[in-house]
Amino acid sequence: MERIVIGICGGTGSGKTTLAKKINDRFKDKAVLISMDCYYKDHMELPYEERAKINYDHPNAFDTDLLIRDIKKLKNGESIDHPTYDFSNHRRSSEVEHAEPKEIILVEGILLFENRELVDLFDVKLYVDTDADVRIIRRILRDVEDRGRNLDSVVEQYLKTVKPMHERFVEPSKRVADIIIPEGGYNRVALDMIIGTIKKKLEDKE
Amino acid sequence: MERIVIGICGGTGSGKTTLAKKINDRFKDKAVLISMDCYYKDHMELPYEERAKINYDHPNAFDTDLLIRDIKKLKNGESIDHPTYDFSNHRRSSEVEHAEPKEIILVEGILLFENRELVDLFDVKLYVDTDADVRIIRRILRDVEDRGRNLDSVVEQYLKTVKPMHERFVEPSKRVADIIIPEGGYNRVALDMIIGTIKKKLEDKE
Repeated sequence: MERIVIGICGGTGSGKTTLAKKINDRFKDKAVLISMDCYYKDHMELPYEERAKINYDHPNAFDTDLLIRDIKKLKNGESIDHPTYDFSNHRRSSEVEHAEPKEIILVEGILLFENRELVDLFDVKLYVDTDADVRIIRRILRDVEDRGRNLDSVVEQYLKTVKPMHERFVEPSKRVADIIIPEGGYNRVALDMIIGTIKKKLEDKE
Repeated sequence: MERIVIGICGGTGSGKTTLAKKINDRFKDKAVLISMDCYYKDHMELPYEERAKINYDHPNAFDTDLLIRDIKKLKNGESIDHPTYDFSNHRRSSEVEHAEPKEIILVEGILLFENRELVDLFDVKLYVDTDADVRIIRRILRDVEDRGRNLDSVVEQYLKTVKPMHERFVEPSKRVADIIIPEGGYNRVALDMIIGTIKKKLEDKE
């Protein structure tokens, strides 16, 4: 079976996860969604205070080799048990998540397009582009309201690592995208286009 | 019959015309392609020297009202006879071009997304985004090699009107786009996506 691998990249708060979930929901059993966030490296050797200081927006924070191996397995029709991440504790969680190889393999993350070997795995590369002010608003609302974080620490982390890493690694990686989607999952016309394209590809294979 | 109207916008040399032509070629009898360039205003009252000085990159250079009326007619199933433009003489040509209403109405031009009434006519808004250096290279090659223009005059026009008008009107109009396409007609994955989407829309209507 030929599989379609779709990479969905974009900055924090861009709407990439919303877009990825909407595509995934649309195809249900035919699709599998992998989040790059699950592949944060574990730093069990460091105490909590040290782990909290890690630059989580730098490519080195991710176990990209493992993500590459897992995508290749899914592409080859093998199931995987991928790591999960515990954001509250800044640790790889003790649980793994099972994922079956499906016709549509969706992968989403902020640094997907920064690694050449990873980029080469995607048949379609989508970059979700949203203004920085809208993105920080969404991030603040998510971290403060949903994750119960302190506003000052969210702003500090944003200015100290999220913003500079975005400008250094995420924004330039837009250049490898096939399609740039303003506003991500909130862009109905683009969502319809992506879904239409995938449906067409599935039909052509039948 | 329900028709799909697709607007393809982007700066000079972005690859928007190439993209529009490739979509048009793909659907042949089912599509009609209208170029906004055909709707340059005529300035028969001015001598050649004065016409050559007009700012052809400003919204006022176009008869946008006529373009809007023509798109509405095509959408309503009426055929049109649209003007054509003689670039060598900076005049509306004496010939008109007949266009039949088709299922797919493609419209391409640099200032398509600058006019709100025009924007509202498009079911899908594509913006072709290409780096300014690549765009000026393409424009120089086209104007000097294909149109036999003088290199100095091409550069002077670019710096004097094309670039400032691009930055003032074209680039900001990207914000209304549903999808942004890097490199236009030279972007194979994006072209396949657009064609796939249109095919799906046509099938869904049948």
